[in-house]
Amino acid sequence: MEVTDILRKNSTIVDKEINESLSEVCPGKLQDASKHLITGGKKIRPSLVLLSCEAVGGSVDSALKTAAAVELIHTFSLIHDDIMDKDDMRRGKPSVHVKWGEPMAILTGDTLFSKAFETILETGIDGVTYERVVGALKTVVDSCTKICEGQAFDMCFEGNFEVTEVEYMNMIYMKTAALIAAASKAGAILGGGTPQQVEAFEEYGKLIGLAFQIQDDYLDVVSSEEDLGKPVGSDIVEGKMTLMVVNALSKASPEDKKELISILKAHEDTDVGRAIEILEKYDSIKYTYNISLNNVEKAKKLLDVVEDSDAKQSLIMLADFVLHRTS
Amino acid sequence: MEVTDILRKNSTIVDKEINESLSEVCPGKLQDASKHLITGGKKIRPSLVLLSCEAVGGSVDSALKTAAAVELIHTFSLIHDDIMDKDDMRRGKPSVHVKWGEPMAILTGDTLFSKAFETILETGIDGVTYERVVGALKTVVDSCTKICEGQAFDMCFEGNFEVTEVEYMNMIYMKTAALIAAASKAGAILGGGTPQQVEAFEEYGKLIGLAFQIQDDYLDVVSSEEDLGKPVGSDIVEGKMTLMVVNALSKASPEDKKELISILKAHEDTDVGRAIEILEKYDSIKYTYNISLNNVEKAKKLLDVVEDSDAKQSLIMLADFVLHRTS
Repeated sequence: MEVTDILRKNSTIVDKEINESLSEVCPGKLQDASKHLITGGKKIRPSLVLLSCEAVGGSVDSALKTAAAVELIHTFSLIHDDIMDKDDMRRGKPSVHVKWGEPMAILTGDTLFSKAFETILETGIDGVTYERVVGALKTVVDSCTKICEGQAFDMCFEGNFEVTEVEYMNMIYMKTAALIAAASKAGAILGGGTPQQVEAFEEYGKLIGLAFQIQDDYLDVVSSEEDLGKPVGSDIVEGKMTLMVVNALSKASPEDKKELISILKAHEDTDVGRAIEILEKYDSIKYTYNISLNNVEKAKKLLDVVEDSDAKQSLIMLADFVLHRTS
Repeated sequence: MEVTDILRKNSTIVDKEINESLSEVCPGKLQDASKHLITGGKKIRPSLVLLSCEAVGGSVDSALKTAAAVELIHTFSLIHDDIMDKDDMRRGKPSVHVKWGEPMAILTGDTLFSKAFETILETGIDGVTYERVVGALKTVVDSCTKICEGQAFDMCFEGNFEVTEVEYMNMIYMKTAALIAAASKAGAILGGGTPQQVEAFEEYGKLIGLAFQIQDDYLDVVSSEEDLGKPVGSDIVEGKMTLMVVNALSKASPEDKKELISILKAHEDTDVGRAIEILEKYDSIKYTYNISLNNVEKAKKLLDVVEDSDAKQSLIMLADFVLHRTS
């Protein structure tokens, strides 16, 4: 099976679970807004929950509610982030706040957040022990706090060109990788993994989560407009801090640093080519790719804590997918 | 002990718990915003958790984390509501979005929401069974979804003068009473109450929660500017639907109905006296007070499911306080 087939298969069962969870939300307007973005995602996070549960010997059924919950949390954070960042489009559609207004979008995010925990708590009826459900819940809740903190750091970093690589990596860990780590960890807990397996799966998720975010920024520079669906270098136009930029700024000559900062501040697309030249001059693009590559290789190695299985093979393919995708 | 003493005593221990729960939130800006409104509230909800736990024979310690969580959830909903309703002041201070901006206020609400669940999940280490913790969690999560739905209904009702009393009561149940009911129910669960006691305590919370909201609106019309800290009738100026208004509109002659609606739409304070005259003409103020009174009497009666104790007496006093407060 190809990665895309695995994701599609999991997407079908997770979407069904999510739709069920949201079917009683009222009034109708709130339900519509809640379901708006659900069908659009790749479903990487819920797939990690299901596959991790299977890889440690558990059954997909035990992890289904938590898989749905993790996707609900991801969607909640997208909806609130889009309001904060004033992003008008999401998954090829108008953002929730564009379609229903900001107050309803805030409320929609809150509803998905609440429904996520409600959904995990329904696991009990499937016969999984309370201890495992509470373990999965703690894992997921902890990552939710991190998502908020990561977004706050990201906002605080805006216009700060002195951010260090350690600070940057910590920010993307909290904002993006923590939920991905929670997905694989919670799956391993629900599947009855040993403490050693649970720890390895959490680290696997963290590493591919970091690689995922780093590749996202890397692709913005090296991919094509066709694959990206938006112009190459749009992060540069937005003045966004990425690992490439943080790395280049730390190594560049005073002149190059000054020039790169002024391009990032300008918010115009005329000097994107020059910015990329500076990133290349200091090897920051290659440096960034190598970090992703190392993360993915380490992540795959961590899966040695479990016997070979289809689920394990799928997790290996998912790790590679993070690296080799073109958009 | 007076009600205010009971609330003050509980406030001290709950504030300490909340401050501990928020002490590791980072960056500092997010932590400051998270703590901004904590010290200002009356702490009725967490007091209900603690007293209900004690009243069924449990120890305050078992319920402390959940008491803190319920207050965190209440504060989260105030912060998001203030953004949605564009309320610039809260608890005598500038609202979170006024002080830190809307993006940070959205994030602050999300953080408190997440921290609330994190806090309940820490109960496990106090030696309460997983089953009770999960029961308390389910109760609280369920009320969170209702808070969101209630706020959405409230927004959808805006400018709709055909809202029925049943629809209105359902809205305030979801928006306000559900969390209060969850507080007393969760306390009873954590204290090891019987199913019959848990049910009675939930209903007690629901009834005083409804009375609380109805009295809030009632006081706006019958209290003094001095007690309220704002002009009498400001709900009328805002065009807010209250039980008094819903009741009067359902009984009024076509002429009076038309006049009341036009006053509510005008958003001016010149005709507040005339609006109150119409509410009085149809006995809607007295009608409303009687509903609160009945609710509180029924609520107190429900406490017969437990033996007499200081905690039970405090719950009776809290029910009366909802009715007899002047602001």
